[in-house]
Order: sequence, then structure tokens, then C-alpha cells
Amino acid sequence: QSFAVLVNGFVCKDPKDVKAEDFFLAAKLDMPRDTKANKVGSNVTLINVMRIPGLNTLGISLARIDYAPLGENPPHTHPRATEILTVLEGTLYVGFVTSNPDNKFLSKVLNKGDVFVFPEGLVHFQFNPNPYKPAVAIAALSSQNPGAITIANAVFGSKPAISDDVLAKAFQVEKKTVDWLQAQFWADNQN
Amino acid sequence: QSFAVLVNGFVCKDPKDVKAEDFFLAAKLDMPRDTKANKVGSNVTLINVMRIPGLNTLGISLARIDYAPLGENPPHTHPRATEILTVLEGTLYVGFVTSNPDNKFLSKVLNKGDVFVFPEGLVHFQFNPNPYKPAVAIAALSSQNPGAITIANAVFGSKPAISDDVLAKAFQVEKKTVDWLQAQFWADNQN
Amino acid sequence: QSFAVLVNGFVCKDPKDVKAEDFFLAAKLDMPRDTKANKVGSNVTLINVMRIPGLNTLGISLARIDYAPLGENPPHTHPRATEILTVLEGTLYVGFVTSNPDNKFLSKVLNKGDVFVFPEGLVHFQFNPNPYKPAVAIAALSSQNPGAITIANAVFGSKPAISDDVLAKAFQVEKKTVDWLQAQFWADNQN
Amino acid sequence: QSFAVLVNGFVCKDPKDVKAEDFFLAAKLDMPRDTKANKVGSNVTLINVMRIPGLNTLGISLARIDYAPLGENPPHTHPRATEILTVLEGTLYVGFVTSNPDNKFLSKVLNKGDVFVFPEGLVHFQFNPNPYKPAVAIAALSSQNPGAITIANAVFGSKPAISDDVLAKAFQVEKKTVDWLQAQFWADNQN
Amino acid sequence: QSFAVLVNGFVCKDPKDVKAEDFFLAAKLDMPRDTKANKVGSNVTLINVMRIPGLNTLGISLARIDYAPLGENPPHTHPRATEILTVLEGTLYVGFVTSNPDNKFLSKVLNKGDVFVFPEGLVHFQFNPNPYKPAVAIAALSSQNPGAITIANAVFGSKPAISDDVLAKAFQVEKKTVDWLQAQFWADNQN
Amino acid sequence: QSFAVLVNGFVCKDPKDVKAEDFFLAAKLDMPRDTKANKVGSNVTLINVMRIPGLNTLGISLARIDYAPLGENPPHTHPRATEILTVLEGTLYVGFVTSNPDNKFLSKVLNKGDVFVFPEGLVHFQFNPNPYKPAVAIAALSSQNPGAITIANAVFGSKPAISDDVLAKAFQVEKKTVDWLQAQFWADNQN
Repeated sequence: QSFAVLVNGFVCKDPKDVKAEDFFLAAKLDMPRDTKANKVGSNVTLINVMRIPGLNTLGISLARIDYAPLGENPPHTHPRATEILTVLEGTLYVGFVTSNPDNKFLSKVLNKGDVFVFPEGLVHFQFNPNPYKPAVAIAALSSQNPGAITIANAVFGSKPAISDDVLAKAFQVEKKTVDWLQAQFWADNQN
Repeated sequence: QSFAVLVNGFVCKDPKDVKAEDFFLAAKLDMPRDTKANKVGSNVTLINVMRIPGLNTLGISLARIDYAPLGENPPHTHPRATEILTVLEGTLYVGFVTSNPDNKFLSKVLNKGDVFVFPEGLVHFQFNPNPYKPAVAIAALSSQNPGAITIANAVFGSKPAISDDVLAKAFQVEKKTVDWLQAQFWADNQN
Repeated sequence: QSFAVLVNGFVCKDPKDVKAEDFFLAAKLDMPRDTKANKVGSNVTLINVMRIPGLNTLGISLARIDYAPLGENPPHTHPRATEILTVLEGTLYVGFVTSNPDNKFLSKVLNKGDVFVFPEGLVHFQFNPNPYKPAVAIAALSSQNPGAITIANAVFGSKPAISDDVLAKAFQVEKKTVDWLQAQFWADNQN
Repeated sequence: QSFAVLVNGFVCKDPKDVKAEDFFLAAKLDMPRDTKANKVGSNVTLINVMRIPGLNTLGISLARIDYAPLGENPPHTHPRATEILTVLEGTLYVGFVTSNPDNKFLSKVLNKGDVFVFPEGLVHFQFNPNPYKPAVAIAALSSQNPGAITIANAVFGSKPAISDDVLAKAFQVEKKTVDWLQAQFWADNQN
Repeated sequence: QSFAVLVNGFVCKDPKDVKAEDFFLAAKLDMPRDTKANKVGSNVTLINVMRIPGLNTLGISLARIDYAPLGENPPHTHPRATEILTVLEGTLYVGFVTSNPDNKFLSKVLNKGDVFVFPEGLVHFQFNPNPYKPAVAIAALSSQNPGAITIANAVFGSKPAISDDVLAKAFQVEKKTVDWLQAQFWADNQN
Repeated sequence: QSFAVLVNGFVCKDPKDVKAEDFFLAAKLDMPRDTKANKVGSNVTLINVMRIPGLNTLGISLARIDYAPLGENPPHTHPRATEILTVLEGTLYVGFVTSNPDNKFLSKVLNKGDVFVFPEGLVHFQFNPNPYKPAVAIAALSSQNPGAITIANAVFGSKPAISDDVLAKAFQVEKKTVDWLQAQFWADNQN
């Protein structure tokens, strides 16, 4: 009986059997993607180990991010990766917040060709401040499976919901505000 | 001229010069700590490399956490560590949320002597559901400098503030709500 | 045909299938354990990846250690972990020995609430110097499977026995002394 | 006296002192670069830790690569990084060779938007097969300081030269051929 | 149904089932090996995880290298290992080339008992300058599966061949020279 | 003012300044070493980062071990390295003991040219069973600074001595036996 060798939960081929296709994806990263499918006005196209099996154990992935006018990639973290990003089209207001106790917010307006780094695990975002034009970025992440945690979705959109006692005290709002937030529709911007 | 050898930004001693004191702290982890100094009703006493220099490069730290009645250690992440926790006194309602796209909330009520694990980088919290009695936990983290990001503080209490355009869209609330939140006093619960 | 994904020899679940129980153990770490089952008068209750499957790959574990009056956790090493310990009850005389050529012995008497660090791979012990009262500690280790090597047991209690020629020369004793030692009953203090 | 903290040979700032500029570069990655300065007809603009100090320890870097018509990024290795690449403009014929004993050559023609992975340490190249039009790619590497070894330059352009006895036998050519090659001008394509 | 646990693609045994044979090989590293089976006049006998299963995850391997008079271990890289070597018999002229842009060639003539280090991923070689006597070395590598890329074989002996357009431009030679080289017989020196 | 860059407590040179000498040592590993300077009849000549600065961060070291007739490299551990060994001259009886609870002793008699592996952190030894002839081995270790802990020396020869209460109970001997052992002269076999 024969079965696949698994590393990190993904199949690892015998080196004798690898093909160029294991390291390739016709990803169409040159094409604009729909930014209207969610409320935040952005779309992350991530090329990770689920999409290119040959990336397994190699510690890197790549993404195209489309931003509608005034769209944003909302505050989120990557639990297993640092991100480096460059702007292909438009302008982006980007930033991250350092950890406790300082919670310093470091931000920058990026123009085409600029590069910015979001250190591993920190809360960060990108926002397209232009009300008329879309923006596009290419980002790379230091893991073949970086993960993403959209803060608002994890906090107010979890399934099942976190107790409103917990969230009301944490965010200094009333429980009915938490309940209202938890009743909204939360969907992340990756597809 | 002589100067200290630095690794990870901390002093590393020559093995010939180390003393027991470099690996020791009279931390009084047996003593209750004040849980009234912040709005969330908890107090994290973290013993990390800043407090025991000998921990440098060794990848572990230890904490005592005190919870007031109805107090909580609010939703937060550790960018560089997994946490394992046991309850010394009282009862805790604990949980964490998995990353996108599922944002599954896994929770449990812990009694004295129970153990729970919060995987690296995920949003998690502990809440004392008892309105009369305090609770106490001991937690260990898989880094000598795990870092902590209290979600509400990083998002609404950063210095300077994140643009309310960004946060209003991310959290599906009005900008004036964001402005009100940003005007509150945010302080983390570690000291 | 379907089978489990294995990492480090342990099952890794698909993130979609994880449950809170995978990260939880009703470990009763608040309860005293029997310290009379072995000759050294101590009992290590280790919560590692064998007991909480969700710990796999996460690099941490937790233990409660009970000490009888004059009991000890005898000289041992952890081949894959640093240990950080705090005293919950009683008093402990603890120490570790640095590697060749100095073999410096660093020791300390710990009272309730004190914290001490045993660096990865070094020979260390804890001893309860009080002839009347038990002691209790909580320890954390920087591996989900730290391993433990009780020195006396590995050297004199191995199965089969190490040649007495080797041990007589190494320990500067006669072979009959080695033979006598090897005939004793050696059992470690973890269960 | 005060001096900088160094990690990996680069300065690490105290978290309290970091600024957005430490994580930013006005890199002009949107602008075509000169591909005529070297014989191979390409230009690699690498944004690594030497250019963005905040990348230190974070394990990632980013590059823009310009290719003249029929230009190439010649066979090379990165001793410390895997590379993932996407084509922004034009077409690229790319490939890598597996290690001994098979030395399998895996290749692909990439169009705009396609993605390809070059595993850590393997010999790889990109070639623009179009005789009229330039090509452009964005690549990410899994190290803040990936290093690059252009094979021909390392072998025939080292300073001082490797003995022609060694190279003649290794490459199955006459020593005068080696001598002629070593007399050429070798310069890498990064600047 | 039972099956083996796999890590890195190799079988990992349950610790209860390991035997001394899993960590042993009657490798005959004391015996001269044939150096006439290939054109470069050397023979690398590598003891890695394929030959001693117990090496899996342990990060080291060992090799004996035999050199004919004027034989060489031609320029090659190890994508996953540093090498440290000592000369058992004869004399070796050894060296490595640093990465771009300097491509510095560091070399040394080694006599019996001398030790030299080849850093991970760099192009290096050993050459026996003695026209009458063989040489022998023992080398250790910092991976249980270091891999080896013989530069000439990877570049000119890949299967299928790399386009001669690419190689002619990279090596500054005519395409017919590339074609002639690709028509030679390339075989590595490990068996 | 200028000063050296330090990594792991050792100097790291700027790549532009490295010389072949930084990666070289005239170690005379071909020469027999004195095995009479200590009571165990062996001599370990370790080539680590203290002796070849260029090894820093590269994760490997090399040793020659000489054994007198009936000499041994007594039971010891390496806290940071796995060891792979081959016999150059003579015969060796070698073994290691697995960790708790099994403490299985795996052993083998090695002849010239045989290879054996001692996994990281486990107690192991080599013994020359021949009463007339010396033995010689070459060993490699998976760290540039593996460390060594000779068990008997760490336990009975530490400075200051470990309390005889602790050792008497751990080794099931009387305190006067411990006291006698602690009064012996303990010196390790590396120089």
C-alpha cells in the first residue's frame, strides 16, 4: 500500500517526482479583482501553500491586494509572518501599532513604488485615501501559510459569539452595542 | 575598554561570571496583586527576560494573573508565544478565536487545577464570571519576551490615534463612535 | 481511505475540526499528589503533548511538582527544554551545574512566590529541606515534549545495564559498588 | 557611554525609539531600471535589511527585476532564501535544477500575472525570450539578507581567480579556455 | 491498520521500538574507495539519513572523501549545510567563494590534521595537487540531508538541458561551446 | 569609535574583511594526543567556535578523540548537539540511554570505519575494551559550541559541592560515600 508523505499537514513529493507545475500557478496577479464583495472595499489574493504545493516548508508566500476608492485592508495580524509591501497603483495610507505598553502607531502615506514593512504579529492596515481611484499592492509574507486574523471579525464576528460581558468591558461600550455589532455581517476580504 | 556582550538586545554574561542571582527573582508570585488599577479588573505579573536576565535566549517566561470578581484579561494576542495556563483560585471562562476565514470561537469554563492552551498569535481572553470572588492563574509563555497586544488598546488607544475613517469602516460603526472610543482612557493590565 | 495527518509523530487536526477539548485538560493541578511511590519523595505531574494534543508544535508544557518533607526531584536534565519554576507551598533548595570545564554549582533557597530558571540541558534538582512540611511548585518547560533524564536512573538503572567497567572508571568506584547500585530499584518520579 | 545594540551585525533600536521611517523606503520600484550596465541585460533592485533597517530578524525581502529584450537574470543561487516571483510585464522563461544526483531541470514560460517558486539554495534563472520588449518581475525572498551567488561570476570571476587546474577538470574544458574566461569582465546585475 | 510515522519524509519510530541498529552503520569509512569511476577523480561516501534512519531531525551527517592524484571534489554547494573538513591523508588545496558582489576567493593548502570550514550555501571545492599520491578527508555537514549541487553538472548536465541561449549569455561563450559542453557526460562523484 | 560586531558572544567580521585564516586551523588532528592526563584515559580535542571564529552561527564542530587501552570517554551529554562518530583506529564499545521512563541502553561494538549516532542531550559514552591497543575516533557535533557535561564531574565534582543530602537520596548511597566521592579529583578529558 502506498500513501503520500505529509509535512505540516501538506503532501510532500519525492524529489524524483516533482514537476514544474508543483512550483507554478497561473495566478493572474496582473488582473484587477472585485473589491465590492465585502464592506471594507478590498480583495486579498494570497498565493500560499494551499495554492502552490511546492511552497511547503519554504517559508514564503505572495499576495496581490486590490483596494476600491476609500477601500481598506482593515486592521489585522498575521500570527506567523512578517509582511513587506510595495504599491503598484495609487496611494495607500498604511500603519501598524507596537505592542503593550506603548501602543505606538507608526504610519506612512505610500506612493507608487514605495516599500513598507509590517513586523510579525503586529496589528496593521492599509487604506486607500483616494475617493476616486483604486489602488493595488503586491505583498510578500515570511511563511508558506501566514494566516490572517481580521481584528473586527475575530472579536465581533466569531462563531459562536464571544460573551458580550467580556467584550463590553474590554471595549468600554455597553452590552447592547456589542450585541448590535455581533449581529452585523462579518466576512473577510480574502478569496 | 570593556563592554557587555549583547544578544537580542540584552546583556549576555560570560559563563564564567554567571551567578545564581542571574536566574532568580524574589517575585512574590504567591501574593495577590491589585486588580483595581485598570478598568478591566485584572493584573498580569510577567516574569520575562527584562526581570530575569538569565532567561535570555532560553525561550520561556512565567506569569501570575489576578482577576477581580467579574474581572477579565481582555482579548489580546502574544506575537511571539503560545500560552499554557492553569487556575490556582476561582473559576475562569476562557477562549480563543481561530484565524480567517472561520473565526471559530473555542471556549471553556476552567475550574481550579484545569489547564488550557492558547496557540501562538491567536486572539484570546480569560474572564472571571464570579461576581463575588477573585480568581488567580499561573500562565507560561514560549518566549523570554512574548510581547502582548491588548486588542482594544492597540486599535482605539494607540498614540497617535489611527484615522477614524479606517476604524469606522473596519468596525462598521460611525466615526463619532470611533472618536468617542479613542477619547477614553486605555491602559493595559500588566505592571 | 482517510488517515490522520501526523507531525512530530502526533496527530494534527484540520483547523476546521479542532474543538476546545483539544486544548484543555481537567488536570487537577490544584490537588496534592502522592509522594511515597518512589524513594526520592517527589511526584512530577507533567502536562505535555501526550496529554493535550493541541500542544503539538507549540513549544511549551506545564508541570506541578509535589515534594514530601525532605523529598527531592533528583538531579536530572531535560534534553529539549529550559525550565522556569515558582514555589506554591513550602521551601525549596534548588540548583544547577554548568557544563565543562567549570562545573559551577549555582544554588538558591526559594521561598513561596520566588522564581528560578534551569537552562536547557543542564543538570539540576530541587530539594525540600523541611523535615515536617511538604512543598509544591509549578514549572513550565519550553517544549511540548521536553523529555527528562534522571541521572542516577539513566546511569545505574538502564535496561540492560551499562558495563560496570565503564561505570567504575567513570565514577571512581569499585566494580562491586557499581554492581550493587545496578541491583537497586530505580524508578522515576513522573506519573 | 552609549552605543547601538547589534543583532546579526545590524543595529537594533529600542522599541521606544522606532519610527515609521525605519520600516519604509521610497524605493521607486514602479520605475524601469537600466538594463544596459552589464552583459546579461538585467537589473535586480533588492530591498533588504541594508536598505530598510527595520527588516532585521524579520526574515523577508523584496526585489524588482528588469529584463532587457533577450536579457536574463543568469543562473544563480540564494544561500539563505527561497524566492517567489510574479511577472509584472512581458514574458519570462524560468527554471531551476534539482540537486545531485538527478539534476532535473524544471522550467516554465511565465506570462503576466503568473507565479513561480525557486526553492532555497537551488540554481535558477529567468530569461526574457522576447527580442523586442522588456520584462519586469517582482520577487520576494525568505530572508532579510538572502545573499546571491551568480554562478559564472563566482566560478570564473572570483578575486583572486580559482586555479585553472581545478576549473578545467571540473568543467571538462582546456585550461586556456578557463584562462580566457577568467580574463573576461564579470559583474553582477544588482545595484 | 498500522503505518509508520513520517517526519521530513522519513520514518520516525516510536521511542519504545528503537534499536542500536537504527543509529549504526558498518560504513567502512576506513577503506579507500574507487576514484576512477568519474572524470574528476574523487569519491564522496556520505552517511546521511538515507543510510542511518536514526539521524532524522538530528541535523548532522558525515562523509569520507577520497581523491585520486590530481583528483578533485569539484566546485559545488550544499543548499542546507555548512561543512567542516579535516585531512586524513595527503594534501588538499581547498577554497570557497563569497557571495555577490565581492566574489572573494578564500583558499588554503591543507596538510594532514588541518581543519577547514565551508559556510552554508557557498561554492567550494577540494583539489589534490599531488600528482602521485591520493588524499583522504573526513567531512561533517550540519544537516541529516545536506544535499549537493555540483555546479558544472547542474549547469551543463541537467536533464533536460537548459536553453543554450541562457547559458551562452551567462557564461560569455558561444552557443556551440555550450552545446558541446552539454553533450559531454556529467556524473557526480557520490555513490 | 569602532568596535567589533558580536553575535552569540563571539566576534562577527564584516564579510569584506574575512580571510581564509578565519575558517582554518592547523589542528594536528592526525597526531595522537596524551591520554594519561586524567583518570579515564581519553582525550577530546574539540575544534569549535572558540578555535575557528568563522564557525560562528554555522552550527557544526569537529573533534578527535584518543582512547588509551581500557580508556573511556565517560558518560556525558551535549546540551546543544547531536554527535556522529566514526572509528579511525581500534575498537570502541559505545552506547546511549534513552530518557525516562524507559532508560533503554542501546549499545554497539564499533570497528574501524563504523559509524554511530548519539542523539542530542542523551547520556552516552565510548569505551576502548582493548587492554593493549589505543583507539581513535573522529566525531562531529551539530553546534559550533555544543557544550559537554561529564556526568560524574557535574554531580560529584561541582564547585561548590552539591549538598550530600541531595546526592545520597538520589543515588541511594550513604552520605559518607557521597562525601568520599566529592573529595576525589574530578577533571574532564578535553584540552
